[in-house]
Amino acid sequence: MTTKPVERDAMLLALTLARRGPAGINPQVGAVILSPGGEILAEGWHRGAGTAHAEVDALSHLSPGDAAGATAIVTLEPCNHTGRTGPCTEALLDAGIARVVFALSDPGDASGGGAERLRAAGVQVEAGVCADEARDLLSSWLTVQVLGRPHVTVKWAQSLDGRAAAADGTSQWITGAQARSDVHVRRSRADAIVVGTGTVLADDPSLTARTPDGDLYDHQPRPVIIGERETPSDAAVQQHPLSPWFFPTHDLAQVLSELRGRGVHSVFIEGGPSLASAFLSRGLVDEVLIYTAPLLLGGDRLATTNIGVDSIGDAMRVNILHTTQLGADFLVIGAPLAASPADQGDL
Amino acid sequence: MTTKPVERDAMLLALTLARRGPAGINPQVGAVILSPGGEILAEGWHRGAGTAHAEVDALSHLSPGDAAGATAIVTLEPCNHTGRTGPCTEALLDAGIARVVFALSDPGDASGGGAERLRAAGVQVEAGVCADEARDLLSSWLTVQVLGRPHVTVKWAQSLDGRAAAADGTSQWITGAQARSDVHVRRSRADAIVVGTGTVLADDPSLTARTPDGDLYDHQPRPVIIGERETPSDAAVQQHPLSPWFFPTHDLAQVLSELRGRGVHSVFIEGGPSLASAFLSRGLVDEVLIYTAPLLLGGDRLATTNIGVDSIGDAMRVNILHTTQLGADFLVIGAPLAASPADQGDL
Repeated sequence: MTTKPVERDAMLLALTLARRGPAGINPQVGAVILSPGGEILAEGWHRGAGTAHAEVDALSHLSPGDAAGATAIVTLEPCNHTGRTGPCTEALLDAGIARVVFALSDPGDASGGGAERLRAAGVQVEAGVCADEARDLLSSWLTVQVLGRPHVTVKWAQSLDGRAAAADGTSQWITGAQARSDVHVRRSRADAIVVGTGTVLADDPSLTARTPDGDLYDHQPRPVIIGERETPSDAAVQQHPLSPWFFPTHDLAQVLSELRGRGVHSVFIEGGPSLASAFLSRGLVDEVLIYTAPLLLGGDRLATTNIGVDSIGDAMRVNILHTTQLGADFLVIGAPLAASPADQGDL
Repeated sequence: MTTKPVERDAMLLALTLARRGPAGINPQVGAVILSPGGEILAEGWHRGAGTAHAEVDALSHLSPGDAAGATAIVTLEPCNHTGRTGPCTEALLDAGIARVVFALSDPGDASGGGAERLRAAGVQVEAGVCADEARDLLSSWLTVQVLGRPHVTVKWAQSLDGRAAAADGTSQWITGAQARSDVHVRRSRADAIVVGTGTVLADDPSLTARTPDGDLYDHQPRPVIIGERETPSDAAVQQHPLSPWFFPTHDLAQVLSELRGRGVHSVFIEGGPSLASAFLSRGLVDEVLIYTAPLLLGGDRLATTNIGVDSIGDAMRVNILHTTQLGADFLVIGAPLAASPADQGDL
């Protein structure tokens, strides 16, 4: 049996409903209950961790028996496990749902398997309807499921010879206006922007995402400061629209785990060189953004420090994803190739 | 009066004759003497420093009076000074030449002014005939006249983060086969390849220009070794088809001056990082070739060391001339923008 047009329309509606919920640690999910004749009986969506899942939310609007023989349209495969709420599969079966159509399979080890459970109970199940649209909606959440942590981007600006600053520490501005503007756009898309306390003390950055005119973008990344030194109360970052989160630790995997727990899907590491290199050396980086200015600096202010490479055979290979020119500067975007699993043991 | 077709043909012949002479400290020059009717009376070319100039060589084939009223076709403006040979202007006047056609003006302060001298003596003078062809022939010699020293290219291979080697010193191979092959082609076009004694002792390079199959290119750069340490008698460079020249000094301007005196028009600086950086910091570099491999190394094996930049405002800006991909690697070719004349004082 193939999907009816009315079911595709209901899926698009469910995707719209899904967007009403918050992006974060839990996925945004929407659901629509259709009568056997194709009438909309109920709508639902997930409002965040600890609240009802979308299917259950939709069913909650119906009286017992109303959904008997009905079709549930859900943007994500109904879960099959008991978390803070019970399994959706059981709620659907209890309500007498006869057919389930969903967009994306649940990639979770614990929560997956819902389709199988439903089929085993005699429910018609159809998967993959409007999957591309659902994947767009959940891309950052899906990335987190696959990685087991937020997606990590490390960005730095450097000279042609790999320096982040001149001998006296001055670095404003190595790169030009177009490159800096590109950084701000990318900041505005990240959930969090991460720096070390050394950078806070040395550069006093605001860690906001700003337009070329200096206005704040609507979406701001959460400022995250890693390290044991105190951030002064008059530091610029204290004026950030989102109050900073402080992690007085060197355990970067733990920081990422904590950020994931707070619903952060993507982090943007901005330095300094030691922090960036620490993320690199621990195999915790998915993407590097290297903005290179057409100048030479020499000296010892390096854009990376030690990244744990001893010999040329152990070099951290980078899959170049994209290169572009921004004014006089170059941007290289690359994905460090995965180190051996042993190197990522503490994940 | 404009140039006759027969004069253009004679100029092309003169350019062919010019190529019979050696490229080196003196320019390659050819000359043809045409009768007033356009017949070729004599041909000549310059055979190198200390020998007759092309015009004088051509006239030497004629008896006194044969060239009276004739036209001299010369690829370079006849010289007007007494060096190791007398001024060509006087030889042409003595022979009774009525018209002189040349391709390129002589850029030399001492040797220039020939056209003016000839005109003052009543000779018809026409300049710029086949100038492009002559410029092609003499481009490296002209560069040396303008720079006052050989053209200097500094080449290095580096990681994305500006390292020339891993922490343990291993660097074979940072870049891939295509990049290395490109280096060898460029080596084969240079007159000299320059390294420091540290590189000879550490890497034992052959300093030859080789095809991908390992064969030697027809033209080999002269190996030049700068520094005070001894090169072992069994060093690979001692087997170079051209015997190495040694300069046990730190005075780089003096080395370039000496190389110019030996007829070297172009040098290719291959390292190590200290030598490359010394040339950079003294403003002696016309072109940098940066081969960047898609990998990260970290650590302290830098492709450049100190280049004399203290503050970001003093950064050595580089005019990017060309960027290209070579296999997985990138090549950036740039011209460091001239430092202030004061910084180049010892030139």
